[in-house]
Amino acid sequence: MATRNKAGTTGGPKRGRPRGRTEQGHETRQRLYATALGFISARGYEATHLRDIAKEAGVSVGLLYRYFPSKRAIVLAMYDELSSAYAARAEALPAGAWRERFLFALRASLGVLGPHHEVLKALIPVLVGGEEDGLFAPQTAFSRQRVQAVFEDAVAGATDVPSNATVAHALGRLLYVAHLAVVLWWLLDKSPRQRATEGLVSMLAGLLPPAALLLRLPGAGSMVLGADALCRQALFGEPARAQAEEVTR
Amino acid sequence: MATRNKAGTTGGPKRGRPRGRTEQGHETRQRLYATALGFISARGYEATHLRDIAKEAGVSVGLLYRYFPSKRAIVLAMYDELSSAYAARAEALPAGAWRERFLFALRASLGVLGPHHEVLKALIPVLVGGEEDGLFAPQTAFSRQRVQAVFEDAVAGATDVPSNATVAHALGRLLYVAHLAVVLWWLLDKSPRQRATEGLVSMLAGLLPPAALLLRLPGAGSMVLGADALCRQALFGEPARAQAEEVTR
Repeated sequence: MATRNKAGTTGGPKRGRPRGRTEQGHETRQRLYATALGFISARGYEATHLRDIAKEAGVSVGLLYRYFPSKRAIVLAMYDELSSAYAARAEALPAGAWRERFLFALRASLGVLGPHHEVLKALIPVLVGGEEDGLFAPQTAFSRQRVQAVFEDAVAGATDVPSNATVAHALGRLLYVAHLAVVLWWLLDKSPRQRATEGLVSMLAGLLPPAALLLRLPGAGSMVLGADALCRQALFGEPARAQAEEVTR
Repeated sequence: MATRNKAGTTGGPKRGRPRGRTEQGHETRQRLYATALGFISARGYEATHLRDIAKEAGVSVGLLYRYFPSKRAIVLAMYDELSSAYAARAEALPAGAWRERFLFALRASLGVLGPHHEVLKALIPVLVGGEEDGLFAPQTAFSRQRVQAVFEDAVAGATDVPSNATVAHALGRLLYVAHLAVVLWWLLDKSPRQRATEGLVSMLAGLLPPAALLLRLPGAGSMVLGADALCRQALFGEPARAQAEEVTR
């Protein structure tokens, strides 16, 4: 094989059959998508090449390119699919305290991702390290925001939502980041069937009631705002100056 | 370029000049090492190839192979160098409470890694995702144990070491894992000169005194043991059964 495949990173062809619009087109797309994820699970992301996917699926490289103009397009399709499935499942968020709703949202996420452990594990280098297709890349914000909104809603719609709306919003975002840490742990989890992740979630469940109590102490709100500001600067690359202006507005 | 370079993943040649033993050999090795890290920083790990390193450094591929039989050997050399530098710096661990000694150990780690932010960032996929050269791989245990020992010692030699030695040991290991989480944050930190990492460490410093108080409550010891057991199962792949036997011994 020659140089790494860079085709289509600028967007791919605009002409040709509408991708996935017809029933047959949808079926082809799903088959190519499943084949691609199978390759990534088995070989890793770097060693997966579009031409091998086309060959395995019995289609021309040209046809594959119409559906997935690059490997990145496959990863973005996966973000799209998983975040949509998650948003749908999270509609069942129960009424209650924010800590109960957070646990529901966290377990729902592990439930949606569960069947895809192999491929997601193979994608750790992309998820964590990818400048342009990682979890914190601007290009994947559409998917991140969908998931983050669930955690923000878990706080905003809770029976014990913090009275300060800015603090409530910040707490939701922090819980989203905490959830990502649990997902990373789950991806790295070497225990049989990731049993140690259940243990971690149970431990978290035990720590949340005292944490919720501590959050009612004076000063806790500003600590939440501080932690949220740090997350946004570090992980999402928001400028500290813009945040300061936001607070004074 | 052709297929990915796999040379030497089985160990490399045993014959030839003793690597790095002579002064000239040491100089050559350092030059190749620096060239390799420069390539990894600029291009990423996957796109770095041994033949390019040899060409840039003006040596034959054969000579390069004697020093670094594979890309993995370069990464392992880096683990070795950084963990040694860290162990040396951590000899200055001050007397005091474990939370002060932990903060010293954490800041010392960020200090040693600091000048290498670029290359370590490029290596995130390997550090986090590498089955055979990642932070939790058996092959890199020599380096991990060197660093972990500092955090264990930070607790074991503290003025307020927990009276139960098993709990003290577990707490040291947990602090090592917490330190890894901070290092990952620092690697991902998008704020100018990773200023948000300073903010995170300051926030941690503020949380440690109440955490140290809570750890004196009844039941806190078993929570530390539980968390440590989960980390060992999930991250280091230790079987839960062996842990249970350890406790009953």
